[in-house]
Amino acid sequence: MQAGKPILYSYFRSSCSWRVRIALALKSIDYETVPVNLVKDGGQQLAIIEYLEETRPTPRLLPLDPKKRCLVRMISDLIASGIQPLQNLSVLQQMGQENRLTWAQKVINSGFNALEQVLQNTAGKYCVGDEVSMADLCLVPQVANAERYKVDLTPYPTIRHINKSLLALEAFQVSHPCRQPDTPPELRA
Amino acid sequence: MQAGKPILYSYFRSSCSWRVRIALALKSIDYETVPVNLVKDGGQQLAIIEYLEETRPTPRLLPLDPKKRCLVRMISDLIASGIQPLQNLSVLQQMGQENRLTWAQKVINSGFNALEQVLQNTAGKYCVGDEVSMADLCLVPQVANAERYKVDLTPYPTIRHINKSLLALEAFQVSHPCRQPDTPPELRA
Repeated sequence: MQAGKPILYSYFRSSCSWRVRIALALKSIDYETVPVNLVKDGGQQLAIIEYLEETRPTPRLLPLDPKKRCLVRMISDLIASGIQPLQNLSVLQQMGQENRLTWAQKVINSGFNALEQVLQNTAGKYCVGDEVSMADLCLVPQVANAERYKVDLTPYPTIRHINKSLLALEAFQVSHPCRQPDTPPELRA
Repeated sequence: MQAGKPILYSYFRSSCSWRVRIALALKSIDYETVPVNLVKDGGQQLAIIEYLEETRPTPRLLPLDPKKRCLVRMISDLIASGIQPLQNLSVLQQMGQENRLTWAQKVINSGFNALEQVLQNTAGKYCVGDEVSMADLCLVPQVANAERYKVDLTPYPTIRHINKSLLALEAFQVSHPCRQPDTPPELRA
């Protein structure tokens, strides 16, 4: 990544790609997108974000205080390990067509119940206090997945509130799935 | 964690608990175990390990070089987000009794195929070079899960080799599920 513009292999709809796009936008890193239709699962997204954080520390995506950093990472991991892998495409493809939506809603609801409780103790304007962090990069794409799978978000007022505040920020807008080079015309906004 | 001995809420069999126990042993942190039979899912384990790394930096569990750190985190996340959540108890309980083993083997094999390829490029004695890292803390408990679900490890020579080297280290032995306060007598060793 030292020489030339970094390349992001990205899929417009992938919540993992979106997390990284938000980080790149927040850190004002210019990059080229190479769209890939098949998105590899796993948690590589957090490793990329941690790498960006270490090599481009401004603006920071992790608080300075170790306990707050731990909260940020705990929330990120709750989403990136505890929710997203259980509802991603390759897992849903294992389910029968008729069980997919029910399964996705079940695992997202179970995760959001835990997340809502945590956020009630940690949130300010955003997931942890009033500073945008790695946890926020994980939250917004996961809420979009929940909406896609028609999860009723009424029981999660804190999640909804934070999500709304974040979607007002430019980094979350330019990185949105509806505005990527590989977004099909009918999904553009 | 400043005042008094830290308490680890631990389940002898949980691979997430084991990862943390290895970190505590490597960093020579004395702690009390409070056994909990119901282990909460999610990825909090990595947040705890990152927290330990930041507050007790010696010996380090992340390399100094940002690219190597990224590799370590990528491997850790591949296991902690890409494999473990798909085969943990709460997911298996969703499957019918007759499908459990097949599902667990399928997701572990799919993850180990990816992992074996990565490790062939990064491994020395351990997952990344010759220094024990966070990735190794994730590897050993995951291999134990694979053995528990009777996954054939023949196609993964690098994984097997690293696992064997790590199990020779004291930190991996004292933290082993067969030696915990809540290990039932018939599983002790």
